[in-house]
Amino acid sequence: MTDTVISSHKKEVVIGFERPFVVIGERINPTGRKLLAAEMAAGDFSRVISDVQAQLEAGAHMLDVNAGIPLADEPAILAETVKLVQSLTDVPLSIDSSIVAALEAGLSVYKGKALVNSVTGEEDRLETVLPLVKKYGAAVVAISNDETGISQDPNVRFEIARKIVNRAADYGIPACDVVVDPLVMPIGAVPTSGRQVFELCHRLQKELKVNTTCGASNVSFGLPNRNGVNAAFMSMAIASGMTSAITNPLHTEIMTAIMGADVLMGHDQDCMRWIRKFREVPPAGEGGEVRGRRETRRRRVEA
Amino acid sequence: MTDTVISSHKKEVVIGFERPFVVIGERINPTGRKLLAAEMAAGDFSRVISDVQAQLEAGAHMLDVNAGIPLADEPAILAETVKLVQSLTDVPLSIDSSIVAALEAGLSVYKGKALVNSVTGEEDRLETVLPLVKKYGAAVVAISNDETGISQDPNVRFEIARKIVNRAADYGIPACDVVVDPLVMPIGAVPTSGRQVFELCHRLQKELKVNTTCGASNVSFGLPNRNGVNAAFMSMAIASGMTSAITNPLHTEIMTAIMGADVLMGHDQDCMRWIRKFREVPPAGEGGEVRGRRETRRRRVEA
Repeated sequence: MTDTVISSHKKEVVIGFERPFVVIGERINPTGRKLLAAEMAAGDFSRVISDVQAQLEAGAHMLDVNAGIPLADEPAILAETVKLVQSLTDVPLSIDSSIVAALEAGLSVYKGKALVNSVTGEEDRLETVLPLVKKYGAAVVAISNDETGISQDPNVRFEIARKIVNRAADYGIPACDVVVDPLVMPIGAVPTSGRQVFELCHRLQKELKVNTTCGASNVSFGLPNRNGVNAAFMSMAIASGMTSAITNPLHTEIMTAIMGADVLMGHDQDCMRWIRKFREVPPAGEGGEVRGRRETRRRRVEA
Repeated sequence: MTDTVISSHKKEVVIGFERPFVVIGERINPTGRKLLAAEMAAGDFSRVISDVQAQLEAGAHMLDVNAGIPLADEPAILAETVKLVQSLTDVPLSIDSSIVAALEAGLSVYKGKALVNSVTGEEDRLETVLPLVKKYGAAVVAISNDETGISQDPNVRFEIARKIVNRAADYGIPACDVVVDPLVMPIGAVPTSGRQVFELCHRLQKELKVNTTCGASNVSFGLPNRNGVNAAFMSMAIASGMTSAITNPLHTEIMTAIMGADVLMGHDQDCMRWIRKFREVPPAGEGGEVRGRRETRRRRVEA
């Protein structure tokens, strides 16, 4: 049992092997969203506000906050966004930047124990991010690549994860506060990438005893019906021991796959979350009615 | 590597650890379908014909054929149905009955190497079904219960599977022709039933080196949105090593979960089956467009 506790000033979320899967909403991120980037740079956070609300309604347990806007004052904008989001919701945040000064700016205004997103196995990242994580009493996402890039050999990625966990311990950060991202490569380019992740999740839980996360949607890059691939991936990763993901909760197929996997892992007590969410969905028919939701609630005797 | 080859007079299907998952269509079965039962008993097979066609179009690789109609002449009807279905399609069949005389009637008219559904670990079943399987050179589904019922202890179920595999060997039936059903209990009643199956699939592949199958839809019995639970279950079972299932291919969520799992296991070469099936489905949007399929094909710059 390894529990990673993340908190706001009022609320705790626990990532753990025997707990419901934790969904970290990825939407507050201007990367690839030109309009949002321009608005945030100009001090207009209306879209951030609506993204917070939409993700919470869709079932996110935590929110990732990123302010990576080229040529903008990222530390200031990230701090402002963190403050704003904390004024809107009690859910804990993941503070997301590749710039150490921005991470520090976000952490300095954050109320609670944040998840820092992220550190890698690169020496300069280890030596700059981990002290911050320790200083602010945070937890950290550890991405299993290093100066040599992303290895196709899952053993190499496992050893990088181990290195980060050990280095964190040197800084006084316990393994339960390191959440490893085993790195999900596009399955269209790397046919073994799914099984690499499933094997790594299993080993990271059994051998390193750490929680895991990932940016899930990368796996379907370049394929049609990406949500279909992502949904299957989430269920399979959870079966393999993955305990959280940074993903888009607005995609209902993915959230259904996650909630179904929680049921099947025995992590949804008495299936109550599933039943609450879907009790209005009638049972599927036996027959050609592929879209069973149109059927009446009572199962009819079928031809 | 264990390959279970099932064939018709013209076509082979191979169930195996490193092969695409095999979907055995479950629809030709009068159990719980009063109208179909009455029609089949009266010699009207029009609905069987349409069920064959619909399941093949939906992507079934094999078809299960059952003629279990109370008070009817099941051996004669099963034989007739088998002949009819083989006149309509080249896909191999699973011959499904709890009555040994019906299994024999079906096998006696079947062209090819059938899958017999099923034998259990009960002594009288072993001693009557296995000789038939050997006589007709068939493969067999081995259900892991015995005279004591269905154990909640997966170790007991594993040992029953081992007993059936050993007894089959005594009759000259190789392990590759035994496809074990680890038994899927409703998750609403047995919260550990999902993990029991996942663990059993893994052990059956690694230790007994046999292929596996199941009646998948049982897992969601009593819950709302059954297809959602079944879809997650299929992906997770495949991640755990399950290699076939007897299920309803008309449920698109389930087929998508199976095809997605094949992609992620590296069992869909170059993702070609996925791409062929879904190439008309445009990529999901980044934003609030939860139903991304309505979007235009070209990904637009999003707010």
